[in-house]
Amino acid sequence: MTNVLIAGGAGFLGSHLLDRLLRRKDIARLIVIDNLWTGLRNNLAHINDPRVDIQQVDAERVDSVTTFDEIYHLASPASPPWYMAEPLRTVSANVLGTLRLLAALKPHGRFCFTSTSEVYGDPLVSPQPESYRGSVDCTGPRASYDESKRCAEAILFEARRTQGVRIKVVRLFNVFGPRTRPDDGRAVSNFITQGLRGSPITVYGAGSQTRSWGYVDDVVDALERFFWLEESEFPGPLNIGNDREVPVVEVAHYVRRHFPRSQIQHLDPVPQDPTNRRPDLTLARRHLPGWECKISYEEGVDRTIRWFRNTVSNLHSPKSLDAK
Amino acid sequence: MTNVLIAGGAGFLGSHLLDRLLRRKDIARLIVIDNLWTGLRNNLAHINDPRVDIQQVDAERVDSVTTFDEIYHLASPASPPWYMAEPLRTVSANVLGTLRLLAALKPHGRFCFTSTSEVYGDPLVSPQPESYRGSVDCTGPRASYDESKRCAEAILFEARRTQGVRIKVVRLFNVFGPRTRPDDGRAVSNFITQGLRGSPITVYGAGSQTRSWGYVDDVVDALERFFWLEESEFPGPLNIGNDREVPVVEVAHYVRRHFPRSQIQHLDPVPQDPTNRRPDLTLARRHLPGWECKISYEEGVDRTIRWFRNTVSNLHSPKSLDAK
Repeated sequence: MTNVLIAGGAGFLGSHLLDRLLRRKDIARLIVIDNLWTGLRNNLAHINDPRVDIQQVDAERVDSVTTFDEIYHLASPASPPWYMAEPLRTVSANVLGTLRLLAALKPHGRFCFTSTSEVYGDPLVSPQPESYRGSVDCTGPRASYDESKRCAEAILFEARRTQGVRIKVVRLFNVFGPRTRPDDGRAVSNFITQGLRGSPITVYGAGSQTRSWGYVDDVVDALERFFWLEESEFPGPLNIGNDREVPVVEVAHYVRRHFPRSQIQHLDPVPQDPTNRRPDLTLARRHLPGWECKISYEEGVDRTIRWFRNTVSNLHSPKSLDAK
Repeated sequence: MTNVLIAGGAGFLGSHLLDRLLRRKDIARLIVIDNLWTGLRNNLAHINDPRVDIQQVDAERVDSVTTFDEIYHLASPASPPWYMAEPLRTVSANVLGTLRLLAALKPHGRFCFTSTSEVYGDPLVSPQPESYRGSVDCTGPRASYDESKRCAEAILFEARRTQGVRIKVVRLFNVFGPRTRPDDGRAVSNFITQGLRGSPITVYGAGSQTRSWGYVDDVVDALERFFWLEESEFPGPLNIGNDREVPVVEVAHYVRRHFPRSQIQHLDPVPQDPTNRRPDLTLARRHLPGWECKISYEEGVDRTIRWFRNTVSNLHSPKSLDAK
């Protein structure tokens, strides 16, 4: 039987991945760690499984006595206002977190890591294949996240090269959906919470910067297949996301249709906001045949709005709502 | 009076910087830490100064009770065979080392860091200005060094942005000279030790890959000015090196003139060996007016050969001599 640890399991993506892990019968014990920095206890409220043990602890301070057959490291903030506010802690979660969790992996265990399209920075090629080395300013305002994800990838590929550690690394492109924090600060959830409050929907600059919006269910389908369903030792990195590229302002207008009281308001551009982001999915199609993001951003936004309406009661407090 | 810590002070570059620090009268106490992974106790054998306290400890495990007015973080292997053999330890030295040492800096203290031209990877522009974002494969065999230096830069610039920490970051281009380990593994010292042993002088591939060879005295002149002599708060990153670009095979032939018994031998190319490397020194000229690398690589090689002849007695053991 399999012992599993998931770090960041109370987060937006982590909690969805946890739900998929719990479908497996071969798992005997599942340790969920989360320091509740950006994760939410509420994201685990529905969990009722005797195999699960939830512990509030930093990934980089996890007890190193117990070891695991599989480790999933999703413990990192992923939204700019959060990582920009605590950049050193962000580096620590990704880099020290990876080192520490690696030490808790059993021999022949598998280490799965969610990296990010941010490793490509403000890309000079489009779409971005995994071989593209990126354009990241390592001294810039997004560097704590971008560089610590890059460095965590480096650690894992070096652990594979020098110690034969089995790794699985994905690079995720702008995932959105239910269980995002209302004060997450990224575009889709920002627009929705602004709409729900009747506030202006704020777009940075002209909003012509593009993103590829992947609905969480589609993304977690891919993670489940890549991390454990497919019998492959391909380590990645593997781009996962929607390859339909949509300008931010278009999403704002789409969200606004649900909230006619809200006006679109343009704010100053964010420094070093990437101009474009779109995955080259050639490798994903090879390793996950038949998989694609089936849910359009429009349908995904509709679902996310329904979830926010049903779930989030208090949308008035956090000031970071206006950041992105 | 000033309390100073230098991490990696028994290393090739660290010990030269230490000599310069000891010229200062304002320093009351100087803690030298080095884990002697790539540093050598011999590099400190000439130190006889009551202000100096030498401690054998990892940078990332330094005592955090004492705090310092100035911290110099040079604790990292810098040669591919060394960092490729222990990549996770390399990441730890740079990333955890930086986080740990930052915690030991006094408020308003100054943190000086030696980054590297490796942050540019295999550059697609030449010469490389500091604004060039680089071309590093974060999953490649050099990633532990390249990415952990990039990540350490990110930490420092974020510490500056969010906490106002005073930082000074240089990016060094292929420094060479006396006190390099005989088994360092990089081109110049490799060629010299091979020549001294009468072995073939080994060049990887055709040797057309270029480097900019900076003699250590010139480089330490720049460090001294940038780190403490000039009254500037410019944080860097600042390229420091020689902007004369020389193919590796040319250096091999130059060294061989001193060792006619040795033949040039071409080995297989090293994976992801950068094809070129040359600093754009525009910023260095602005911030360090009058400074340049005055010593040609030929003169530097001659001096280094003299030092190796006088100092290194046993050149026969380390197998890593044949790596680069």
